Amino acid sequence: MADLFPNGWCSTRFRVRFAETDAAGIVHHSTYFVWFEEGRSELSRQLSMPYSDLESHGVDLLLTRSEASYLGAARYDDEVEILTRATSVRSRRIVFEYRAVRPSDGTLLATGITEHLAVSRANGKPARIPEPFLSCYRAAAKPEIGP
Amino acid sequence: MADLFPNGWCSTRFRVRFAETDAAGIVHHSTYFVWFEEGRSELSRQLSMPYSDLESHGVDLLLTRSEASYLGAARYDDEVEILTRATSVRSRRIVFEYRAVRPSDGTLLATGITEHLAVSRANGKPARIPEPFLSCYRAAAKPEIGP
Amino acid sequence: MADLFPNGWCSTRFRVRFAETDAAGIVHHSTYFVWFEEGRSELSRQLSMPYSDLESHGVDLLLTRSEASYLGAARYDDEVEILTRATSVRSRRIVFEYRAVRPSDGTLLATGITEHLAVSRANGKPARIPEPFLSCYRAAAKPEIGP
Amino acid sequence: MADLFPNGWCSTRFRVRFAETDAAGIVHHSTYFVWFEEGRSELSRQLSMPYSDLESHGVDLLLTRSEASYLGAARYDDEVEILTRATSVRSRRIVFEYRAVRPSDGTLLATGITEHLAVSRANGKPARIPEPFLSCYRAAAKPEIGP
Repeated sequence: MADLFPNGWCSTRFRVRFAETDAAGIVHHSTYFVWFEEGRSELSRQLSMPYSDLESHGVDLLLTRSEASYLGAARYDDEVEILTRATSVRSRRIVFEYRAVRPSDGTLLATGITEHLAVSRANGKPARIPEPFLSCYRAAAKPEIGP
Repeated sequence: MADLFPNGWCSTRFRVRFAETDAAGIVHHSTYFVWFEEGRSELSRQLSMPYSDLESHGVDLLLTRSEASYLGAARYDDEVEILTRATSVRSRRIVFEYRAVRPSDGTLLATGITEHLAVSRANGKPARIPEPFLSCYRAAAKPEIGP
Repeated sequence: MADLFPNGWCSTRFRVRFAETDAAGIVHHSTYFVWFEEGRSELSRQLSMPYSDLESHGVDLLLTRSEASYLGAARYDDEVEILTRATSVRSRRIVFEYRAVRPSDGTLLATGITEHLAVSRANGKPARIPEPFLSCYRAAAKPEIGP
Repeated sequence: MADLFPNGWCSTRFRVRFAETDAAGIVHHSTYFVWFEEGRSELSRQLSMPYSDLESHGVDLLLTRSEASYLGAARYDDEVEILTRATSVRSRRIVFEYRAVRPSDGTLLATGITEHLAVSRANGKPARIPEPFLSCYRAAAKPEIGP
């Protein structure tokens, strides 16, 4: 994992879409949660642990909590970088942490977390995150390392 | 149906949400298709023909085409009325027509259509719209009556 | 205010739109922040304190933090009630609290908060919330009253 | 321009976001208009004709019409390619054409067009598209060349 995420964060970059802005001229705050989700998707891709494989193990990861703090404003066409890392990986729960950054000037736009609970697709009850997902996310989790 | 849609259109009203606006200060054009869909949902409710019942008959209605013409600009907090009617109901295809109006000043904001193809949920192939949906939508379709 | 929000919460109701669902079959978590914003809008309407008036006083309310906990799943066509109240009103900051409920079975779908900072539209610096907004929101804030 | 868009189309690629799907398990039809807009943005970037420059000339491009035909279904995590080209460039109007393709299997997901009218930011009336935008888009427009 040291090579995969040398500074502890998985990175993905894209441009702000016009539809993501609002009448205040900036990116709507709800959009950051869509971006954080894209950060999780990229982390899964880089770990070669696609969500569809988790489903095939009979497990869903429910999002149970989300938080964001907004520190800067992103605008249409800005390039944005989403940094994602797992900060807590337990047998049934994962917490991800995010940073949204504008690389052109280094502005930290937002920080956030999401919490997820593994549940059985069969009965909806809390379930153990199956291997090799659990080990893989544990190995990737580096809560002690800053950006 | 004469009582249900006396002027040929099913109506639903709501306020423009801030998240539906964009950095031009007006409602993003893609939002109108979300509103048109809400118009279809309201039509189904008023006909007591919920989409979930159609699914239970083993049929999905695929959206195969959408069009909109934008004639006015809606802004945050505007009340908007969506008028919806079926204009063509055949055994496997339905066309809906829409008008988005701002009642406060009578502005016609947009017009549009969507085309839908009935397909079997089992094999994805075109299928006949089941009864009583077909008869009900046919009875509700009043292509000849203007607003 | 006692008559306006007898139980301390401002209420608004609407149906889940199909576009608000995701491939898990439920409402996407980011949608709740759009709904919470609609709750704030309704509170402003009921207080006769439209956001456009605040802007005309030269002040914007920046959203600086958002949180949500997800307790239940909403689905397409569900009626949803958003309950909103101001829980902390200071000269430059307001905190709103939210509950998303499905009235048909009383399910509490989500709870959340948003924090807002008043800033000058002229220079972007923190500013005092102008009267009569401050007094009005203070009078409406009833942090001690549960639902 | 021949080098910039050798086959007449400007291309941009990205992954389907989970938030872009709906309860039918596929990308919501309204999302394609957001993607088409991203295609226009990419075209502007590659032509070095950013929209902000157009605004600084006192002109807005209003979107007056949109159409899409849906031919295939995109799903979460699919890579999607949006192909964009200007098909008609007149002094006050531009028409763009789009194709949404899934490169992994070559599926044509959707085709569409958008029509735009140049208006003065000062008075909202139709206006001439300023140079060098007009010449640049005219040079890029290659309606006769297929993909």
